[in-house]
Amino acid sequence: MSARPAKERLVEAAFALFAERGYEQTTVDDITDRAGVGRTTFFRTFPTKEDVIFPDHEVLLGAIESRLAGSTDRTALIAVTEAARLVLRHYLAEGERAMTRYRLTRTVPALRDREIAGVQQYQRLFRRFLHRWMGGGPDTALRAELMAGAVVNAHNHVLRRWLRGQASDPEREFDAAMTETVGLFSRPREGAESSIVVFRTSKDLDTVLPELNRLLGEPG
Amino acid sequence: MSARPAKERLVEAAFALFAERGYEQTTVDDITDRAGVGRTTFFRTFPTKEDVIFPDHEVLLGAIESRLAGSTDRTALIAVTEAARLVLRHYLAEGERAMTRYRLTRTVPALRDREIAGVQQYQRLFRRFLHRWMGGGPDTALRAELMAGAVVNAHNHVLRRWLRGQASDPEREFDAAMTETVGLFSRPREGAESSIVVFRTSKDLDTVLPELNRLLGEPG
Repeated sequence: MSARPAKERLVEAAFALFAERGYEQTTVDDITDRAGVGRTTFFRTFPTKEDVIFPDHEVLLGAIESRLAGSTDRTALIAVTEAARLVLRHYLAEGERAMTRYRLTRTVPALRDREIAGVQQYQRLFRRFLHRWMGGGPDTALRAELMAGAVVNAHNHVLRRWLRGQASDPEREFDAAMTETVGLFSRPREGAESSIVVFRTSKDLDTVLPELNRLLGEPG
Repeated sequence: MSARPAKERLVEAAFALFAERGYEQTTVDDITDRAGVGRTTFFRTFPTKEDVIFPDHEVLLGAIESRLAGSTDRTALIAVTEAARLVLRHYLAEGERAMTRYRLTRTVPALRDREIAGVQQYQRLFRRFLHRWMGGGPDTALRAELMAGAVVNAHNHVLRRWLRGQASDPEREFDAAMTETVGLFSRPREGAESSIVVFRTSKDLDTVLPELNRLLGEPG
């Protein structure tokens, strides 16, 4: 018996037992016995056995909300990127526990479904924040949804690569992935009064820019 | 007792009972009694009670795969759009049944999780197809994932609007949503030998295009 909080003892016992016996073969009683904690405490801490696999889910949702809430109009996209980075860092800090969870969610359908539902909750937070940032009107609802989805997918892409041992420097991969993701949405929007001109050229840009400005710039 | 297939009778009975009594309050026995079909037939048709809510999920996955498989390199993006449209049209054709499912997935967590997991399966099909189309290398893995996610999100955005009674012309909204979605990814990729020039101009494009071609076009 240690002085650590009951929640941490339960999580540690649960992950150890799931790794030893498998998720389905482990009962809540097995977990509370190993942790030296009562059943009542378990169910006060986790509504179901599934929840012990994602013990910090609510904490992470709260951390994302705080990070987004602390931004301004100008720093909104940085806030989104940094909020997603908080989640990535949380998993990186978990280390072996994150790897065990990954093995479990790939093999236990109920846990996989639960994880996907959790990802949807992250995505909803980002979508609401981005939509408000874009003005909140119906004309930007889809764009906010696509952007939120892209941020979450980019995060998960890097996280999965790390969980599979394919990413030696996940933070750096995250930077590149977020640059690519935000870049998709950084074009001026179509349908405005002005036109968007996209050209691919092999000419030296410094040479043609003055003439381009003259050609396309606003009159006067 | 009608001559319709057992599967259709089971689905019809299940949706009627779920609407009358609620999902949790309806047992498989209630469904088979109402449908006039045996328990064995139910479980031969649907692995669990949840599956009767998504009776055509496997059919839709197969239809997407066929539509994608019938495309060429040049028609890949059309195939993706049309495959997503197949799914939309399926729901539109269901009508009231799709609305009942939407009410159920919003109120029964197990069904919501199952639906989200099903969406992930669509997304995986699109991701694999798009990644192969992009060459299949590690440099395009993220891009394929983002694009697949965007296609599925755009589809769901329009579908949800229709389910909520907000979209009077869902097919037209789908066209606009897919145009916006594919447009995000239609820029030539950065990092190639040539540069991408993006300009916003209020000038008449037809007037400036010849000079633009002269200015930025390839030598010779």
